[in-house]
Order: sequence, then structure tokens, then C-alpha cells
Amino acid sequence: MFPYKTTFTLDRTSTQPLYIQLSNQFIQLIKDQKLTTKTKLPGSRIMAKLLDVHRKTIVACYEELSIQGWVESIPKKGTFIHSELPELKRRDFKVEKKKVDQPLQQGFKYYKNSDLIPVTTRKKEGYITINDGVSDARLTPVNEIARTYRRIAGRSTIHQNLSYGTTYGNDKLRETLVNYLNETRGLRIKKENIMITRGSQNGIYLSAQLLLKKDDVIVVGETNYASADLTFKSAGAKLHRISVDKCGLVIEELEDLCKFQQIKAVYVTSHHHHPTTVTLSAQRRIHLLNLAKQYHFAILEDDYDYDFNYNHAPILPLASHDTHGNVIYIGSVCKTVAPAFRVGYLIASTDFIDEVSGLRRIVDRQGDELLELTFSDFIKSGELDAHIRKVMKLYKKRRDLFCGELKKRLHKYIDFTIPKGGMAVWVVLSKKYTWEQVAKEAEKQRLMFGNVTRYDLMKTNHNAIRIGFASYNESEILDLITKLEVTMHQLEHLGKFD
Amino acid sequence: MFPYKTTFTLDRTSTQPLYIQLSNQFIQLIKDQKLTTKTKLPGSRIMAKLLDVHRKTIVACYEELSIQGWVESIPKKGTFIHSELPELKRRDFKVEKKKVDQPLQQGFKYYKNSDLIPVTTRKKEGYITINDGVSDARLTPVNEIARTYRRIAGRSTIHQNLSYGTTYGNDKLRETLVNYLNETRGLRIKKENIMITRGSQNGIYLSAQLLLKKDDVIVVGETNYASADLTFKSAGAKLHRISVDKCGLVIEELEDLCKFQQIKAVYVTSHHHHPTTVTLSAQRRIHLLNLAKQYHFAILEDDYDYDFNYNHAPILPLASHDTHGNVIYIGSVCKTVAPAFRVGYLIASTDFIDEVSGLRRIVDRQGDELLELTFSDFIKSGELDAHIRKVMKLYKKRRDLFCGELKKRLHKYIDFTIPKGGMAVWVVLSKKYTWEQVAKEAEKQRLMFGNVTRYDLMKTNHNAIRIGFASYNESEILDLITKLEVTMHQLEHLGKFD
Repeated sequence: MFPYKTTFTLDRTSTQPLYIQLSNQFIQLIKDQKLTTKTKLPGSRIMAKLLDVHRKTIVACYEELSIQGWVESIPKKGTFIHSELPELKRRDFKVEKKKVDQPLQQGFKYYKNSDLIPVTTRKKEGYITINDGVSDARLTPVNEIARTYRRIAGRSTIHQNLSYGTTYGNDKLRETLVNYLNETRGLRIKKENIMITRGSQNGIYLSAQLLLKKDDVIVVGETNYASADLTFKSAGAKLHRISVDKCGLVIEELEDLCKFQQIKAVYVTSHHHHPTTVTLSAQRRIHLLNLAKQYHFAILEDDYDYDFNYNHAPILPLASHDTHGNVIYIGSVCKTVAPAFRVGYLIASTDFIDEVSGLRRIVDRQGDELLELTFSDFIKSGELDAHIRKVMKLYKKRRDLFCGELKKRLHKYIDFTIPKGGMAVWVVLSKKYTWEQVAKEAEKQRLMFGNVTRYDLMKTNHNAIRIGFASYNESEILDLITKLEVTMHQLEHLGKFD
Repeated sequence: MFPYKTTFTLDRTSTQPLYIQLSNQFIQLIKDQKLTTKTKLPGSRIMAKLLDVHRKTIVACYEELSIQGWVESIPKKGTFIHSELPELKRRDFKVEKKKVDQPLQQGFKYYKNSDLIPVTTRKKEGYITINDGVSDARLTPVNEIARTYRRIAGRSTIHQNLSYGTTYGNDKLRETLVNYLNETRGLRIKKENIMITRGSQNGIYLSAQLLLKKDDVIVVGETNYASADLTFKSAGAKLHRISVDKCGLVIEELEDLCKFQQIKAVYVTSHHHHPTTVTLSAQRRIHLLNLAKQYHFAILEDDYDYDFNYNHAPILPLASHDTHGNVIYIGSVCKTVAPAFRVGYLIASTDFIDEVSGLRRIVDRQGDELLELTFSDFIKSGELDAHIRKVMKLYKKRRDLFCGELKKRLHKYIDFTIPKGGMAVWVVLSKKYTWEQVAKEAEKQRLMFGNVTRYDLMKTNHNAIRIGFASYNESEILDLITKLEVTMHQLEHLGKFD
């Protein structure tokens, strides 16, 4: 008889029932061909004694194996390993057994995209990490949001929002945003013109899927937001780049292009161009809208930092002057509140919104209604505005301190224009140095740069990167600038001995 | 002089500052060419008097217009409409003005997919709506989840989870799920093998993007989960259908197919086939795994209702026997807890997980970390298991009542097998009738069917649909069956007079 007694190991402290533990080990024995087809298993009474378990455990185990098709019961004869199991090669399973605790390796082919690299990095303890303009997570009104969340979850009718809902996003949040955006951004939209996304990137992605197929042309700035570039490329589009100067995208170049090239869309961060932070001028705005109307292309307006203006009221988006339905307007609360809250919006013509909401059905089915209701409340109650007012004051101070210190202590090495809004400065480095050098040297000062080459994918040698200021408090800003100053002194010193 | 006094309307009750209201109206006048280029604007003192506002309001308004590039200030001369505005055609703007309060119409071309229809439907008050197997939202432990959410939001270190995070999903939830799934589903995975998705559909979508390009072949059941079909079609794939019998997908047909056709993947709902609810037999499981190994295709295993078994322990997924890395295993808590909570997982080889997490970066950047932490806690504390145990008992009762009544009162018209698990019954209608007829007649009884044709997209005339039972309480079940009974009697009666 097979050495059942010594083969099975049962963990009586495990939450997994004994009969399941037993069945799983049986299955492994069958797969390993240690128990071969048509083998008769001991009766439940005998087996129970052998393994020192209750007879019911064995009965349940055999039943389980029978249901799963591993064994068959023949009346008055007993329980047998099933006669119709496919032949298994013993050696295969032996070799494989070693692998099971390792992360699996793929056993099939699929399409890789080497441009799309997963993000894992977390801040390194004791280091200051340069970012390209994110909010200060410490200022997030997370308790207020969680309190609202819980209050909404406690409503007696909340179950109506917990089952499958609409692909457009929660109705209440759509209504709230329509009012809020019409009031604050000069839009004149209705509920049919808005869908709730999971942040701006999600809006860019969904739009790109509908706008772009292989070899379609989308126009972007010569410097452009890297994630948008990746999204368009991944859709198979050709990116045509036009210059960016101190008034934003040079629309004259776009006009020339339109004359001989069919273009599907223009991607624009009109409020503060990403990465250079400049604002698209009024003339160019009208020019762009007129071209879109004339040549029937879409303007994908990514208004990622509308809320943050320090010198003047925000400039109304292109979408507020869009009378021919050319603009797809994208925004989110991720930048304003915190990236962890994935709530954004996409605004366009009714038919485009219908189409995006259809696509959304297969992408992720729907949003998180409880969170959407929470944000509806958060916006309607004025808490979002209060939060913006609060952080704006702080960020303005931080910008002034950051730019002041940068100017005072690093003017020898760098050049920049004080940004009128947003959370980052576009810093041009003296041609004597490269940001790669700086990044390498800065590590010794526990100052971490990300990938500094991502701002110049076209290799135009502009020698500039974005440095965010909003996420650091005053002492961190001073610390950061000091580290940068020491770094530059070191580089200068090293240079002298070259 | 231009009739400023009568032209402007200021709403002093609005939350929008007066100077913004004024600027916006100025911009409209310029765009309408009522104020033409180089027009001199009245001085701020005069204008303030005209409009009965504070002089500072006018100064702020002119400043705003100047920053936006609509006007220019010439020292000692005054403020003028900018000389470099592009020529605007008056008529264009007049025609357009009528449109602004309407939902926008598209002004560009894009790719439509008529298969992807947005979902809007909500339950109709006073009606019973048939679903194809969803949980009862009223049983959602929403207060417990919200309480956990708030507690986690109150942690002093929570801000570390609020900024941009990893594209793989929150680390803690990944670790919790690795332990939970290894224990409950016989998997032997590590953290590197799992990423957090936004539900099963999101997992199917992301996988499909990597597995399938135009004309690649994916094999699915002749009846299959409609959303999966849509997802694969939308990726450009060719769907090859094989039969489904009472032991699930007929893998013999797959073997024949493999001999002359390269296939990229097989989509399988092995635990309870969608829509027919049958379980893939052990023999076919091994056969399928062996074929995948031999022909190097992927098995996309969608284990959408693993948790719900009434007659026996759940059958371990294919993924638990996958020694060659052929299985991509997809699941979620959406079905188990509530669809509104968009938390799911995708399990595969490390390199595939890296690739999906890279793709995710452009799809929606990342998950909602606060919700992910909440679910980590909810699972670890045993609350998820307690919830499953609680609702399983209820759903079993509901299944028994539903199937019992169906049998007793409708056996003349329908045929079905009692499902061993899941939340729906596959109901075959007598060939004398069609579900379209039934759906139409049932409306009179305030019983709403969805689109009953979606279960037979291949037009095989199986005359069956899924009817969910889990979301109704006892009295609702009785009510539903009564309505269905009356409906069938009506149809029978009508038939006699045909």
C-alpha cells in the first residue's frame, strides 16, 4: 500500500480545513503520478485511522476529489483514482516542482512596449527627491475627505450606489462639476458634456484611443509632457513636433503644417505649458481655435494646473471659447487635492462623451461611486475652494522663496523665469554643465534627481529640467538649494582640475 | 463712445469676482468684433463711474485682459484693444452664439465603435429588474469599510500614500492578497506575480492589450461572457469559438484547432462558465494546461465568482496547477463585496506583471491607495471572510428558493440545472416561446429584462438566458417568479388565439 501515513502533512493550526489540505496533497500525488490511475484508495475508516483524523474529514476529502474529477466512486467497490485522467509525464512535473516557489516565468508570447516602464520608486529616507511639480501631500485634507466618505457611506439609501452603475460616472458629481466648471472656467456645458475619469492621464488615454490609429498625426510641442507623448505613441500615432517659445506652442508652424498634412489632433497644456511653464498667448489661442475649425482637428486641452496662479486670475481655457466643438477638455482633482484620489473629468461634445463612456465599459467598467459622491460633496460644500485658497497662499510663498534663493545663490550656473503659476520652475543650466553631471554629483549630498533626460527626448540640448517647489516646506527648500549649491561648487571645483 | 454702461451685466450675487465677469464680457465683445483692434478703452476712473463699480475692479479687469493678451497698455496713452489680434469674422461668431448653451457637437473626426455602448440604466422604481448574477448591494458591509477607510486616513503617516505611487498597486494590499490567495486558492505566488487592478474587467482589458493585435486568434466558448468578447474584438482579435457542454469548454475542439491554427490565448471562466454556469472538469483542466504548454498560448482565467459555492468547496483555479507560466489569473472583490469598490488583481509571471504595470501607467496611472489600504485591512482582519460566510448562507437559501419555485411553477415552460455555485441560473425556454416575447409581455407585470439577445450573439438559438437570484430577498424572489408565471400564462393564453 502507498505510504499514506508518512506522505501527508497536516497543519492543524492553519485556517484551511483539513479536508482541503488533504485533497490538495492528493491532487499533487496524482499529478506527480505517485498515485496512478485506477489505484484503489483505502476506505474512509482505515484512512482516518492512518492519518489520525475524523472519518468525516476523509469522506469530505474523497467527495471533494470526486467532484473535481480526480477520483471516481464505484458502488460496492470503493474509491479509485479516475480512469480518464490524461497521461501525465512524470519527469515534467518533477522538474517543475522546483519552480513552484519562484515567481512564474511566462509560457506564451505577448507584445512588449519598451517605452512603458512601470513606476515603483518611493522617496528614499534621508534624501530630498526632486519632482517635476507635485502638491505637498502633507497638506491634503485627507481627514475631511474620509469623514465625508464615511458620512456618505452611512446614508440609508447608499446601497443604490454600490451595485453596477453608469459608465459616465456618478450623476451627482457630474452635475456638481458642471456648475463648478461653468462658474470658475467660463465653460457653458451641460451634464451630457462631461464624464468622470480616473484623473487627467486616464482622460488623455481614453481620448487617444478614439482619436488615433496607426500613422495618424498628432501635433505636440517640441518639449512636451512625457506621459502624453507615450500615450500617443502607444496608440500608434505619429508625433509631429512644433516649437515652443515664451508664448507657448508656435501656432504659425501648425498653420504651415496643416496646409500639406492632415492632422487628427493637437495636444496642448495651454495654461502652463508642460514642461516649460509658459502660457499660450491670446492671439495664439484664437489662431489655434480657428485652425481647428478650418481643418477639423481636435484640440486636446490638458488643463493640469488651472487652480494654481500666483500673479493673476487663471486664464480661461480654450474650451471656454470653443464654439465649434473642437476642444476636448481634460482636468482632475489629482493635482489639486492629492494624486491618490483618482478623480478627473473629460469634457467634449455629447457624441464624443457617449463614445468615451462606451469605451470605458471595457477599460475598467466604471468609477468608484462612493469616492465620486464624496468629491461631489467636497466641491459643493466649498471645501475644495477653501483648500485651494489655503494651499495657493503657501505655494506662492514657496515659489517666491524657491525662486529667490535660486536666483541669489545659483545665478552663476542657471537661468530661469519665475513661473506665474503651477508648481514647478523650468531651470536652464549653463552650457558648461549637464544635468546628468549635476544629478550624479548631487547624490553625494543626498539630493536625488529623477531621470533628467526625459525633458529632452528630441535631443535639442536645451539643457533644462523642471524642478517642483510646491511639495517642500521652507526649511526643505533651503536645504534643497543648499545641496544644489554645494553640488555646483563641487562641479565647478572639479572642472578646474580637468 | 461704445455703450459700456448698457452693455455689461454684472451679477453681484455671483461667487465669480466682478473683475472676472467684466473681463469675460470684454473678451466676448472683442471676439464679436464689437470692440475692434486698437480701440481705446476709457480710463479706469471713468469706467468705474460708468459701471458703478470700484476703480480697483476696473484696474484688475484691465490687468487681467492685458495678461491674457486681449489689450495692451501704452504708457501715457492708455489701454487699447491689442493690435495683433487675428482677424475675426463677425458672422461666424454670431451664428455660433446661439449654440453655446447646447451640448457641443463634435468638430473633428474620430473612430467610433458601435459595439461599445455606454451603460446608463438604473433600476426603474416599482419594477423588478432581472440581472445576470450580481450580489445584493444591501448586504454590502459599507459601514465597516468606510470606518476602516477613515481610520486609515487618520494615520499620522498617511501622507506617504497620498502622492504618486507605484503602478503595481499598493504594496500592502499586494502582500495581503498573496497570502490570502495562496491560502484559499492553492496558488504559490510571490508579490512580484500580482498587480492590483480596478476589477476583473480592467484585468481582461489590460491583458488583451498585451496579448492581442489585429487578426490574432483568441479562443472563447460558443457562449461566452459578452464583455470579454467585446474587449477582445476591440483589440482587433479574431474570436474562434469552441463548444461548451456540461463539462465546460470542449477542449478536444481546441486541440484540433491548435494543429492548424496559431492561437494566442484562450479565455476561460473555469469555475462557473459564463453564462451557462457549468464547471470545467478536471480532465479538461489538465488537457487545457497541457495544450497551453505545448502550443505556448496564454490561458486567461477569469475567476469571477470563486467565492460562491453551495455544494462543495471551491475548485482550485487552473492557476494553481500552472507550472509553465501559461495562466493569467484574474479576479476581484467587486462581485464579492460590491461593484462600486473597484479592486481586483491580475496574477501572472513577473515579466508579464511588469509589462501590464507599465501599460497601466498610461491607462490610468495608478490605483486609489487609500481604498487599496482599506481592502488590505478588510481582508487581513478576516472581515472579508466573515462577509463571504454570511452572504453565502443567504445566497444558498435564495438559490434553493428560486430554483424550487422555478421548478414548481414554471417547469412547463423552462428547463434548467441547479447551479452549484455563483449567483445566476441558466434558464432554457421552451421552443414554443422566445425570451424577446417573454421580456415584452413581462413589462406589463413590471418585470424588466435587460437585453436578452446578448446571450446568443452567435445566433445558435439555444433559447436561454441567465437569471440572477442572489440580489433578491425571499419576498422579491416570490414576487419575481409570480410575475414570470403570470407572464407565461398570458403568453400561453395568447398563443391559443393565434
